[in-house]
Amino acid sequence: MSSESATGNNVAAVSAAPTPTPSIGSSTAPPPAASPFMKGNVIDGKAVAAKIREETAAKVAELKAKYSRVPGLAVVIVGERKDSQTYVRMKRKACEEVGISSFGADLPETATQEEVLEVVRGFNSNPDVHGILVQLPLPKHIDEQAVLGAISVEKDVDGFHPLNIGRLAMKGREPLFAPCTPVGCMELLERCNITIKGKRAVVVGRSNIVGMPAALLLNKRDATVTICHSATKDMESIVRQADIIIAAAGQPQLVKGSWVKPGAAIIDVGTNPVDDPTKAAGYRLVGDANFEECKAVAGAITPVPGGVGPMTIAILLRNTLVSGERFITGKLQCPVAEDMKAGCSKKGPLSRLLPEKEHLGPWSLVAAGSLLAAGALQRVFTSRRQ
Amino acid sequence: MSSESATGNNVAAVSAAPTPTPSIGSSTAPPPAASPFMKGNVIDGKAVAAKIREETAAKVAELKAKYSRVPGLAVVIVGERKDSQTYVRMKRKACEEVGISSFGADLPETATQEEVLEVVRGFNSNPDVHGILVQLPLPKHIDEQAVLGAISVEKDVDGFHPLNIGRLAMKGREPLFAPCTPVGCMELLERCNITIKGKRAVVVGRSNIVGMPAALLLNKRDATVTICHSATKDMESIVRQADIIIAAAGQPQLVKGSWVKPGAAIIDVGTNPVDDPTKAAGYRLVGDANFEECKAVAGAITPVPGGVGPMTIAILLRNTLVSGERFITGKLQCPVAEDMKAGCSKKGPLSRLLPEKEHLGPWSLVAAGSLLAAGALQRVFTSRRQ
Repeated sequence: MSSESATGNNVAAVSAAPTPTPSIGSSTAPPPAASPFMKGNVIDGKAVAAKIREETAAKVAELKAKYSRVPGLAVVIVGERKDSQTYVRMKRKACEEVGISSFGADLPETATQEEVLEVVRGFNSNPDVHGILVQLPLPKHIDEQAVLGAISVEKDVDGFHPLNIGRLAMKGREPLFAPCTPVGCMELLERCNITIKGKRAVVVGRSNIVGMPAALLLNKRDATVTICHSATKDMESIVRQADIIIAAAGQPQLVKGSWVKPGAAIIDVGTNPVDDPTKAAGYRLVGDANFEECKAVAGAITPVPGGVGPMTIAILLRNTLVSGERFITGKLQCPVAEDMKAGCSKKGPLSRLLPEKEHLGPWSLVAAGSLLAAGALQRVFTSRRQ
Repeated sequence: MSSESATGNNVAAVSAAPTPTPSIGSSTAPPPAASPFMKGNVIDGKAVAAKIREETAAKVAELKAKYSRVPGLAVVIVGERKDSQTYVRMKRKACEEVGISSFGADLPETATQEEVLEVVRGFNSNPDVHGILVQLPLPKHIDEQAVLGAISVEKDVDGFHPLNIGRLAMKGREPLFAPCTPVGCMELLERCNITIKGKRAVVVGRSNIVGMPAALLLNKRDATVTICHSATKDMESIVRQADIIIAAAGQPQLVKGSWVKPGAAIIDVGTNPVDDPTKAAGYRLVGDANFEECKAVAGAITPVPGGVGPMTIAILLRNTLVSGERFITGKLQCPVAEDMKAGCSKKGPLSRLLPEKEHLGPWSLVAAGSLLAAGALQRVFTSRRQ
């Protein structure tokens, strides 16, 4: 019955789709339109990420040539978690590769909350730092909300600040930054020429860092979005209505091939380790979708690894570039692509982007002085040039 | 085909419903459970609103008895729009009825933005004002974002501040206030014993003041939410899957009876004037749903007028009470019912509710001093007692 219902919906939705959809079982389902970033129906996240890093490096070089200054990213890590340390190393290396100067703070597991906050405040007021990232998870004795909330909103390149999430949710408003992984998902869709406007999108998962912001980004791009979660009943029939599926539940291979409407695009955000004795490590990573099953039905699908994974750091670098541009040029730049056009229409200093009282942190106070402050900012920067 | 699909989905969804649903055409569809606030399947918004105003008045009286102080609401109106003036009059009258002291500022159509901002700032720093409301729409020459953004977030009883919207969207966070009309919709559902958790909810419309916050509130209450809008294709088949329909598109009688799953609950936020020569005024108000058609199919439905309308002011009064309690008692109180429990678990002064840097406005700065500041606050208040 639910399969019938899905078929019913498919026909309606597919008739509106730009391209014919493959029959179930076709393992070479064509993408909605030719894209250099797809091999058959598999989205090459590494290639898209490389392209964005290349674009970012070029703009960093421009900034450096014009202002003799480059964007700076500060990465804060607390404790000795191996995985966190690996991520942080990758992020710092990625900065170097695109010419972004990287600032680090490695605190011991025993660091107090006040010590962590002190580090964040230091970076907030450091004019060479334009983005601040606190590697999660933090040790249990530290209040994550307090630490993330302490990051100056203009340097919140992770886009996790409630003010940025709120502006992401609101019509006619734009965040200073949107969260990196969900923006990465949008980039994969757009650079693979997958239409979002008017499409049915189902986001599986509603986390603050992926599910919810992904749903808000899809809505801003005029998709009709449904958010599924642990309390959702008959998830299968809901997912089967989707033209676009964002799988971000953190459950290995939750989305089966039978859940997927033929021709649908699947962006798989999951990276779940599952035992695999054939691997040296004894495990392998799988996504939230069953890749082989879904690949046979989908019009486009991201692999795990090599799909969404590489995008997160690429967008982090781009967010840092955008922030650096704002500070270094003293002009308002547009954070991200399509859905940010509204934001772009507002020209003027940073103070124009956030209405009074939304200004937070020392730099807001500076920015609030608008042009005058922007001038002052410039002088500060100039005096700090390396 | 789409009707088949809907039926397919209905069966799945209805089987999970707590009560049997009426057959199409039954004009006396019972509510999901007996409620004193329903007549047949029609939700009596006036009765629910009256109950909330009664509860609010009782708590205001308690505050007055214990602290010799009452919550205060400031309503700012700019220009001579008849409808706005009527709303403002109603709000001030409602304040008096529950014992909330009301502060007014009526500015001429010609007021400059700076003049309006000055008024807002004045109320921000007035310790007898705990809620500030700017009547919309504002004259075209005034930047609505700037004015709304100028309201201190702790006095944002309308819940429109992006920081409150962001916290509404985020897991593990709670806003200081949620927007009145959407909260009113939740109250209607809950007080009529309509289950939200695990249900399919469709919100038609994605405005900042109703559609989006309603979707976020439903998601926080564990409904599976779909947001429909102008770019949505085949809206009819999507709405037909809903156990709960929030109609907030501002289009007269958009939702037809044929769009409604038997037994579904319909909360109609629309109030559209349509010509009606039989009326003295020459027009009558209709909702975004075709009431007669939908009433015949729905398990519960709000009339227009007399449904959602009366709830908005009732929740505004309750939000003002909650804000007054925070300031007057110096303790953290829980903004709204069920979905706010997370917020409640945090005991302590107001500064505990918003992490560092999310504090905005003079009162935040005061609050940031935590207990010490709370003491100071108390002394200020005492010295101001009427």
